Amino acid sequence: MRAMTQTQERPLFYSVIIAGGTGTRLWPLSRARYPKFLHALTGSDSSLLQATANRLTELSPAERTYVVTGVAHAAAISRQLPQILEPNILAEPTQRDSCAAIGLAAAVIAQRDPEAVIGVFSADHLVGDQQRFTEVIEKAAEVADRGFLVAVGIEPTRAEEGFGYLRMGEEVQPGVALVAEFKEKPSREIANAYLEAGGYLWNAGMFVFRADIFLEELGRHKPALRDALTRIGQAWDSDGREQTIDEFWGGLETISVDYAVMEPCAVGGRLVAVPADFPWSDIGDFHSLGESLPNDDTDNLVLPGSDQVVLRDVKSSVIVSTTGRVIAVVGMDELVVADTNDALLICPRGRAQEVKLVIESLRQRGHDQHL
Amino acid sequence: MRAMTQTQERPLFYSVIIAGGTGTRLWPLSRARYPKFLHALTGSDSSLLQATANRLTELSPAERTYVVTGVAHAAAISRQLPQILEPNILAEPTQRDSCAAIGLAAAVIAQRDPEAVIGVFSADHLVGDQQRFTEVIEKAAEVADRGFLVAVGIEPTRAEEGFGYLRMGEEVQPGVALVAEFKEKPSREIANAYLEAGGYLWNAGMFVFRADIFLEELGRHKPALRDALTRIGQAWDSDGREQTIDEFWGGLETISVDYAVMEPCAVGGRLVAVPADFPWSDIGDFHSLGESLPNDDTDNLVLPGSDQVVLRDVKSSVIVSTTGRVIAVVGMDELVVADTNDALLICPRGRAQEVKLVIESLRQRGHDQHL
Repeated sequence: MRAMTQTQERPLFYSVIIAGGTGTRLWPLSRARYPKFLHALTGSDSSLLQATANRLTELSPAERTYVVTGVAHAAAISRQLPQILEPNILAEPTQRDSCAAIGLAAAVIAQRDPEAVIGVFSADHLVGDQQRFTEVIEKAAEVADRGFLVAVGIEPTRAEEGFGYLRMGEEVQPGVALVAEFKEKPSREIANAYLEAGGYLWNAGMFVFRADIFLEELGRHKPALRDALTRIGQAWDSDGREQTIDEFWGGLETISVDYAVMEPCAVGGRLVAVPADFPWSDIGDFHSLGESLPNDDTDNLVLPGSDQVVLRDVKSSVIVSTTGRVIAVVGMDELVVADTNDALLICPRGRAQEVKLVIESLRQRGHDQHL
Repeated sequence: MRAMTQTQERPLFYSVIIAGGTGTRLWPLSRARYPKFLHALTGSDSSLLQATANRLTELSPAERTYVVTGVAHAAAISRQLPQILEPNILAEPTQRDSCAAIGLAAAVIAQRDPEAVIGVFSADHLVGDQQRFTEVIEKAAEVADRGFLVAVGIEPTRAEEGFGYLRMGEEVQPGVALVAEFKEKPSREIANAYLEAGGYLWNAGMFVFRADIFLEELGRHKPALRDALTRIGQAWDSDGREQTIDEFWGGLETISVDYAVMEPCAVGGRLVAVPADFPWSDIGDFHSLGESLPNDDTDNLVLPGSDQVVLRDVKSSVIVSTTGRVIAVVGMDELVVADTNDALLICPRGRAQEVKLVIESLRQRGHDQHL
């Protein structure tokens, strides 16, 4: 294990894990009450959340590792991550999108360490190369020390329509460029053109910045949101926390950090991108889960293990079960089976995204307990 | 409800339901411990066993309706058929194939009513036309009164390779012919030739005969088996039942009624066939289940009901569940899903017979509790 070089001269690095979102395209595994990040979708016994925390131990010790989540999940997160200090689990009373989540972490941490540099990471992404990940984030932290907001963008490996893109502009140092523009999810043709042209990165929602700079930029573009979050941050470690939350949380603007801060900063030339070349997946649906994890010799992915799974003439399929039941599949290609105690999904991998429509059907039928 | 005409001159009609066999091709629904006939595979709340008993009420009142089964299933059968008298549930200590099962019923009933005419019916078959069924069995009973053994053979509706066939010979009365020959399960070509030629019936294991004549024929071809069964039948309603079973049951020959009695009788010109033109299925596997029961407008069969099943762009599929879980299927044709608490099967309808190989795999892995 290498430890990140921290000298007296450089500010300390803090990891912030954003544990939000349910991952509805992984239904029935992922639920409102038991979201994706709590599940062992990593090819090991670790949950995505645990794998994320493990990945960050080289960058920040436990006392500088934070989790932001909804109150409903704080207890489950505490159980999965016993090493994280209780004061570092920041529970949001209600969801106010990513700007409030990241802003809360920045405000609380800035109050505790005004010099802090923060890296923001999703709790439910997979990374394939630990060492390269650490190197890229260390580089991003160095750039952030200089006062930039840094987006760690993933170098595209395919013409993906499901992600937003960052168009890179002028270099500010070797391998680090200003973000010239945010691009929404493109069409297939445009995604192909980005891939061929080069100079585009996937926006993975992975950011590194000095807490004070982030709050300053937030104040420039969303002053009311900055002021409220700062008040909450100042009160967080005091007896006035609950009262201040009561006073300000409900009025926070619900807006993504991209819209509120990152895009305006890109326009202003204050956001840079560090390209990341480590294998990465957001495990958006069962199809991408099958692409992200190592498969058996007929290209099947069986989670958590194959002891009780019998496959006869089955190829390129994804079979995920939380029940321990015997599952027998005969004569199928490119199938998804997701098996839980109260719900079962069967669909072709190519139609894994239609799970959203299944959920809509269930909602209309009043099956809220299954969502 | 019509009652079968029974005059003083004619012997009384008894129904014997043979509740044996596990139906391994319906795994994981059908199990050694919970066989096919106990399941509601009828498109209603009735189990196959209950539907069979209901079908026979027009032919025999409860006091003349019998069930032969293994000791392991006697309690479950009593619960499903509370109307059947306890003395009419004949529990075999061990399985000795169909000749012993039918012979036991014949010996016990002959002891109680020496004139009895018996109809033998499988507990796990489906019949589509109640009135026609009653008419055909009444006709068979009339022929049996005359001293023939009668096979009720199903008029083929397709070139089925999975059944044995009866070749009809000379007519003994209009619509009733001697069985000239038993034919084993044919190849596809030969099954086609049978269908085109006519004069062949499916052997459904459905027989009608006088109990005394059956025992006489059994004595002609398998005298030791007849003698042992007669001894057991004589002792059945006495204090000596257990001792006699202990003495004779273990030594009974394990042989099918076709081999022991019906084929030799056909050779001797003493077995006739009454053709049956009612819709019939032995529900051999999930594919034939889908063909036997009424489907929805996209030709899907959902059992026990569709309340918790969401189908999106699914056609000609069979979905059977005993769990009450939500089942969502997207984009599938000709699929079989069989969902139970501890095992799940997914396969194409055309490969439903390969379930036998899945069971073999599970046996090799030591999953005996799932068989």
